Amino acid sequence: MIRLHDLAGADPALRFSPYCWRTKLALAHKGLDFEALPWRFTERDRLPEGHRTVPVIHDADRIVGDSWAIACYLEESYPERPSLFGCETGRAHAAFVNAWADRVMVAGIAPLVVADIWGVIHDKDRAYFRESREKRMGGLLEDVQADRDSRVESFRASLAPLRHVLKTQDFVGGEAPSYADYIVFGTLEWGRRVSEFPLLAAEDAVFAWRERLAAMPVVAAASAPR
Amino acid sequence: MIRLHDLAGADPALRFSPYCWRTKLALAHKGLDFEALPWRFTERDRLPEGHRTVPVIHDADRIVGDSWAIACYLEESYPERPSLFGCETGRAHAAFVNAWADRVMVAGIAPLVVADIWGVIHDKDRAYFRESREKRMGGLLEDVQADRDSRVESFRASLAPLRHVLKTQDFVGGEAPSYADYIVFGTLEWGRRVSEFPLLAAEDAVFAWRERLAAMPVVAAASAPR
Repeated sequence: MIRLHDLAGADPALRFSPYCWRTKLALAHKGLDFEALPWRFTERDRLPEGHRTVPVIHDADRIVGDSWAIACYLEESYPERPSLFGCETGRAHAAFVNAWADRVMVAGIAPLVVADIWGVIHDKDRAYFRESREKRMGGLLEDVQADRDSRVESFRASLAPLRHVLKTQDFVGGEAPSYADYIVFGTLEWGRRVSEFPLLAAEDAVFAWRERLAAMPVVAAASAPR
Repeated sequence: MIRLHDLAGADPALRFSPYCWRTKLALAHKGLDFEALPWRFTERDRLPEGHRTVPVIHDADRIVGDSWAIACYLEESYPERPSLFGCETGRAHAAFVNAWADRVMVAGIAPLVVADIWGVIHDKDRAYFRESREKRMGGLLEDVQADRDSRVESFRASLAPLRHVLKTQDFVGGEAPSYADYIVFGTLEWGRRVSEFPLLAAEDAVFAWRERLAAMPVVAAASAPR
């Protein structure tokens, strides 16, 4: 069975990494059994040599890190199982969605929930998290997160391309979810797992898409690995 | 031969619609001969019934409008020719790139070149263009375009997802251009054809990608139809 190092909070059942969610959804889409081992930010010595961040998977004797590299590895290693990308061009186009999610979504969500993340992570991670994120974001976590009720509108506006494409297709992957859907879903899951702050408005087409995908067996399989 | 209604400036050789460029590149990618008839904004009566904007193509007795619909039509009607999307999932993912180009790129470029567009269009189009665009953009065209030297930076920053994906692949379509590349290239061509204002910095990876694609036969074929 594939083993995954999966970022966890103080509560080991709280799994919130946007990148680990992408990987869990990819594994579930492929119908691969996996074990998701809780891992904390400061447990670098528990990762295989050469890896400093999660996700990292062990598939028999293969070790692969980075959510995008893992998705490509799974597609190549398990071609007989449901495709994540459809074809090579589909994979290349999904790389654009991946870059968009990292540059626009992650950058947009982080300042809305960063203090909430600090609130749910393990005690031993807190000093590292506060120091590294305050340096990156240029201020106290609590200050960065302040005024989010007004700032959330610009995050929501930044989802315009996604909202637009969902007018003419049910999923980013077309009639059924592809890895592109998991990229976006996994990124939203990050915010949902650490915070009660509503990233999406209930009347948003993106909200409806998320609910549609959340009700599918692939999400249940990703959420409750063995 | 396919006929295309193609937006032209005062000089009929000046073709600048971002959407018509997408279509011409798609036609060239498919290796289809086409004639690109100059069309001006106010020549609505020269378009087939039910169409108010270009591109519109006539392919024997079929009439199709809207660049995205035309790309899908060409892919379906000419499956034996080089694919624009690779597969259905590739097409669905390209729809995201299309939405991103429309919502982010077109919206970003318009205020940088809108007065320059007015300067190159046909006299008979100028009153219509000024009135409709000033209403849409909330000010005099010349005021909207002012200060573009400072504002161009935020447009360039908005290309971050594209810049990022080009770090690991030569084209948005992967090893070779797909319709996703033509979407982005065609959108940039709009600005290039109407203005000398540099939308891209010469040291940008997006600039290098554009040069790479511009040197390919597909662009020559799209630029000089019969």
